[in-house]
Amino acid sequence: MSLYLGNKLRLSVFGQSHAPAVGMTVEGLPAGEPVDLEELQRFLNRRAPGGNALSTARREEDKPRFLSGLLDDRTCGAPITAVIENHDVRSKDYEALTDVPRPGHADYTAQVKYGGSQDQRGGGAFSGRMTAPLCVAGGLCLQLLKRREISIHAHIRSIGAVEDRPFDPMGEEEQALQLLQQAEFPTLSREAGAEMGRRILQAKEEGDSLGGVVECLVTGLPAGLGGPLFDGLEGKLAAALFAIPAVKGVDFGAGFDAASMRGSEHNDPFDVCHGQIVTTSNHAGGILGGISNGMPLVFRAAFKPTPSIAKEQQSVSLSRMERTTVSVPGRHDPCVVPRAVPVVEAVAALVLLDQLL
Amino acid sequence: MSLYLGNKLRLSVFGQSHAPAVGMTVEGLPAGEPVDLEELQRFLNRRAPGGNALSTARREEDKPRFLSGLLDDRTCGAPITAVIENHDVRSKDYEALTDVPRPGHADYTAQVKYGGSQDQRGGGAFSGRMTAPLCVAGGLCLQLLKRREISIHAHIRSIGAVEDRPFDPMGEEEQALQLLQQAEFPTLSREAGAEMGRRILQAKEEGDSLGGVVECLVTGLPAGLGGPLFDGLEGKLAAALFAIPAVKGVDFGAGFDAASMRGSEHNDPFDVCHGQIVTTSNHAGGILGGISNGMPLVFRAAFKPTPSIAKEQQSVSLSRMERTTVSVPGRHDPCVVPRAVPVVEAVAALVLLDQLL
Amino acid sequence: MSLYLGNKLRLSVFGQSHAPAVGMTVEGLPAGEPVDLEELQRFLNRRAPGGNALSTARREEDKPRFLSGLLDDRTCGAPITAVIENHDVRSKDYEALTDVPRPGHADYTAQVKYGGSQDQRGGGAFSGRMTAPLCVAGGLCLQLLKRREISIHAHIRSIGAVEDRPFDPMGEEEQALQLLQQAEFPTLSREAGAEMGRRILQAKEEGDSLGGVVECLVTGLPAGLGGPLFDGLEGKLAAALFAIPAVKGVDFGAGFDAASMRGSEHNDPFDVCHGQIVTTSNHAGGILGGISNGMPLVFRAAFKPTPSIAKEQQSVSLSRMERTTVSVPGRHDPCVVPRAVPVVEAVAALVLLDQLL
Amino acid sequence: MSLYLGNKLRLSVFGQSHAPAVGMTVEGLPAGEPVDLEELQRFLNRRAPGGNALSTARREEDKPRFLSGLLDDRTCGAPITAVIENHDVRSKDYEALTDVPRPGHADYTAQVKYGGSQDQRGGGAFSGRMTAPLCVAGGLCLQLLKRREISIHAHIRSIGAVEDRPFDPMGEEEQALQLLQQAEFPTLSREAGAEMGRRILQAKEEGDSLGGVVECLVTGLPAGLGGPLFDGLEGKLAAALFAIPAVKGVDFGAGFDAASMRGSEHNDPFDVCHGQIVTTSNHAGGILGGISNGMPLVFRAAFKPTPSIAKEQQSVSLSRMERTTVSVPGRHDPCVVPRAVPVVEAVAALVLLDQLL
Repeated sequence: MSLYLGNKLRLSVFGQSHAPAVGMTVEGLPAGEPVDLEELQRFLNRRAPGGNALSTARREEDKPRFLSGLLDDRTCGAPITAVIENHDVRSKDYEALTDVPRPGHADYTAQVKYGGSQDQRGGGAFSGRMTAPLCVAGGLCLQLLKRREISIHAHIRSIGAVEDRPFDPMGEEEQALQLLQQAEFPTLSREAGAEMGRRILQAKEEGDSLGGVVECLVTGLPAGLGGPLFDGLEGKLAAALFAIPAVKGVDFGAGFDAASMRGSEHNDPFDVCHGQIVTTSNHAGGILGGISNGMPLVFRAAFKPTPSIAKEQQSVSLSRMERTTVSVPGRHDPCVVPRAVPVVEAVAALVLLDQLL
Repeated sequence: MSLYLGNKLRLSVFGQSHAPAVGMTVEGLPAGEPVDLEELQRFLNRRAPGGNALSTARREEDKPRFLSGLLDDRTCGAPITAVIENHDVRSKDYEALTDVPRPGHADYTAQVKYGGSQDQRGGGAFSGRMTAPLCVAGGLCLQLLKRREISIHAHIRSIGAVEDRPFDPMGEEEQALQLLQQAEFPTLSREAGAEMGRRILQAKEEGDSLGGVVECLVTGLPAGLGGPLFDGLEGKLAAALFAIPAVKGVDFGAGFDAASMRGSEHNDPFDVCHGQIVTTSNHAGGILGGISNGMPLVFRAAFKPTPSIAKEQQSVSLSRMERTTVSVPGRHDPCVVPRAVPVVEAVAALVLLDQLL
Repeated sequence: MSLYLGNKLRLSVFGQSHAPAVGMTVEGLPAGEPVDLEELQRFLNRRAPGGNALSTARREEDKPRFLSGLLDDRTCGAPITAVIENHDVRSKDYEALTDVPRPGHADYTAQVKYGGSQDQRGGGAFSGRMTAPLCVAGGLCLQLLKRREISIHAHIRSIGAVEDRPFDPMGEEEQALQLLQQAEFPTLSREAGAEMGRRILQAKEEGDSLGGVVECLVTGLPAGLGGPLFDGLEGKLAAALFAIPAVKGVDFGAGFDAASMRGSEHNDPFDVCHGQIVTTSNHAGGILGGISNGMPLVFRAAFKPTPSIAKEQQSVSLSRMERTTVSVPGRHDPCVVPRAVPVVEAVAALVLLDQLL
Repeated sequence: MSLYLGNKLRLSVFGQSHAPAVGMTVEGLPAGEPVDLEELQRFLNRRAPGGNALSTARREEDKPRFLSGLLDDRTCGAPITAVIENHDVRSKDYEALTDVPRPGHADYTAQVKYGGSQDQRGGGAFSGRMTAPLCVAGGLCLQLLKRREISIHAHIRSIGAVEDRPFDPMGEEEQALQLLQQAEFPTLSREAGAEMGRRILQAKEEGDSLGGVVECLVTGLPAGLGGPLFDGLEGKLAAALFAIPAVKGVDFGAGFDAASMRGSEHNDPFDVCHGQIVTTSNHAGGILGGISNGMPLVFRAAFKPTPSIAKEQQSVSLSRMERTTVSVPGRHDPCVVPRAVPVVEAVAALVLLDQLL
């Protein structure tokens, strides 16, 4: 259920939104790798809730406690387990919901799958809170990748109808990428970011929510990772990206736009540059035949709008099997996309480090 | 590399475009299931090359020989292996290409990954020909699903700029779906299909190629398949769909469009209908929280334009590390999308039967 | 490294002997299963150290804290994580050993594998302490099996040269099996047990250690579990049993003795008994062709003597690459076999429940 | 069912004894490795039936046809598939057996598992014939290991009560090992071999069969392969060895004998020899803490006597649910052990190459 099985890396994510803790075990990281726990914490803070008016009012420090796998801030070869305790839990908010499934949520499908035994409090194992341990694992991977000169950066490509400018698929300036990591609202265009913020607040005030697209750029990746058919890099990345709650679409390079291009337009011409084989455009998004070609990796993940909204919605009572209405209490992000940016980076880091090892 | 590992089903695909054969081994199908080999052949014929002016001139009968796993046209519980011999092979067409990688192809990345030992003839293990054994496996799965009243149908959603009407996410008439399977050009709108055919011929004449989108609709799937996080149905399907050569994007339900919707618009209201829980719209595409909700499954796969084009393109000589040009000889589809329709159905059948078992 | 991947059950074990904690995550248990935490604790106490003069002086309460997966003492379908904190840790005992590997231990091989970054304190991830989380997972599985009328019981078949009587492969009286679970020294013959105790104390006084054999009997298992070749029940059980530190041999039914039997002697005749197919002897140990045949499962695991002994032994200094001697301080069992009995039961429960689901 | 999933190597075995063919697909071998097909054939001939009076009268050439993965006698990186057609098939011999399961065989358990749909002809997927494709895969691996200076040799350790001398766990002379590979009856002592032959013939004349033990010695393996717990080398090897039909026990180094040794006796002292860490004895069989220590690997597999015997045995009629007798027609080895020797080598090669890659 919550197991990522890579070639070398294996990640097990556990916890529920209102269980004593969430956490993860990752194994397969090489022994002897230094881990900078402060850098990790800064990464986790990008995802942590409660930062501002645009996100949920639930406040969690998201401070992992490492139970194993580290010795003197280095990996020791044993599986690394980290636990984040759940503190600010208000389970009572959810009591009324066990009978009336929230539209757009996993309430009903979890009920069918687990026969009523599921932990529905706070979304249980389906909660966005599960991305905290994902970010612990991915944050560790990002540090190993960085030492291997591979960098992964994501930005908000769009929220609702507001678009940031796309990444240049041939690469971005280092400075622009650094800014993304520090920004409260990671967009390339400051104006777009400000407008997105306004739209999110507006939606929140209307008891509604917004979706958006996160775009990710990976540079420094060597050619030769992945393989044909079921070993393709797109498939590996997509499988992991769809594990992020609310993701409904993933595409690479020109992606869905490629479908309306001609071959002569889409094919990236090869060239030689400083003794390296490169392509002069990057519609492929860095992947040919399922294998990295040495160009920047570019992909996008589409997030649906947060299903939890204050507006009244139509649902049913499962016990009485009749129509009723529901309005979702609890504390929710009116738009998960800003907090999803580091999650996308984390998932990409996990998959790509696994391929690299 | 070519292994699909489901929960119950395991598929191993083997062969290269110009090797003695391509084939597959699938295990995990229940014992005692009848297999209709004629129905399977009709399914394979939908993918087979050489049908008309719109596809490659290579002609292969695509007739599988079953080496194991069947006894008196029933599964016997042992792994099923089927082999399709490669006959109409013209390896000479490819000799010049070993030094000059074709833009948009896996030539260069395979060279990096396999260090020059790869079988480059006809695209080797990266060839679209590998979808023939995929269709053998998927065709078997489709028969088992059909007996369990689950039907899978795909159509050409678009080719280049020409669009077919989308599937009704609440379901389609049985008759329309039947016609899709028999049509040489599987579109819901006959006019759209005719126009697509004209555009493909035009591209071919210009030495160019087209991409497109295949959309798939699955009905009869029970609620409760899949799970949260890495067990999500979207991730499982996407991982397998990206194994199809040329796929660069996959989305579910409203998909990328969901990113610009509001929660109040995207959330599908629950209702009770004939004693069943249903939703009154289907933006979720039949999946909530990674788990099927009993509504029709709807997803799309975007195919890039065929990279092999007659037009001259810029490439490099790997031995001389200098710029040169290449024009791709050989026999290629100017657009793989029509033949990809049954492949998408096959891959969906494989994943969904695996989830169901 | 520490991942058990069954068909349905997945177990991840983490921790090191002197890390903050050891623990496990198990997923795939059905939702809604009641868990009796007191019964689990009684099971864990059978393995826990510090019980008497025959085992290590290290005292750990081995009380798991469940972080996830349980709701009101029932499984909720999410992965179950339990953590056992390490308290009584004396890492200083091990400081001298990093340069001089202990004979019979993993010190040297861990050094090679992890390049000196391993956590060597208390045996790190190679410690017998890792069997505590194995027993948490297995103890849960035993409860589910019991409800399905499958019982698993092990006894000490031998320690050094002292032998207990073997299990009757056709089954044992319920009462005898119950006594095994409560006995401080689980043997079928009380005299054999008493003699084993004397020999262990004697070995301890001499600064030496003993090995032994644990035998396991499983009743109530239905016919049809397992499969041919790599799916064989023997292979699945053996793979997991060899994960227990110190196991160097595993055999099933007549096992190694079968090698000197004739077919006419070894083959178990079939018979009909109360409308069931049975065999009138059980040399097969309940498995034919890798598949359970409905008769009791019988197997043995051979444990080498504890490598940590007070006696002076020859070793080398890794830094100076010259011969030296070592005597192992720390607190160790002079014989791990008595405490290994519940571990064997736990591992068997894990594998068999996985096959059953 | 028939899938071996290593870290890097994946083997899929298919076929039934009387299906059109048996075969295998192996993937994960590095690209560019030369394959000597004549050497492979010599290896396969060591297992092939029909060689002499001691084995089954069924004659099969066991000549694999490679369908994919090789290009000019080198691996090309794609999965390698080889097929061995079944020719000398006498299915009629088995018709009477569908109702009366043979004692010691998988007839009954296959019936339960596959509900009567199994292919029972010649043992179907449970037949010793399935070891032919295992040997194709293992034979390829042996060639790669040999080039890496790792050699794997097995001998008949015992048949019935007749014992060959054991391997010297510190290593054997190259010449003695070479002779094993060429011998019709691979024993270290020629006299023991001759006596074994006599006993087999005698058992055959009496309508009976014999079991035995195969011992394997691996030299040249570097230290550091394997890992703790479920990654242990013993567990990986055992899981694969138990996939060989008729294996009922596996042990490593001193194995079951270790259980009656003292720590001071069993522990292998470390020493320095030519700048290498070695041990001065090898009771560990080359594995400490689940990880290879650079010493020769030594292990044994116990084979039960062939269940198919001419002597009349008690069985039951499944249709009438009453006692009856059965005498097994067909052509069978009175002792599978001599032909099992290369199979053990093949399986060891598969596991060890996988660990090495």
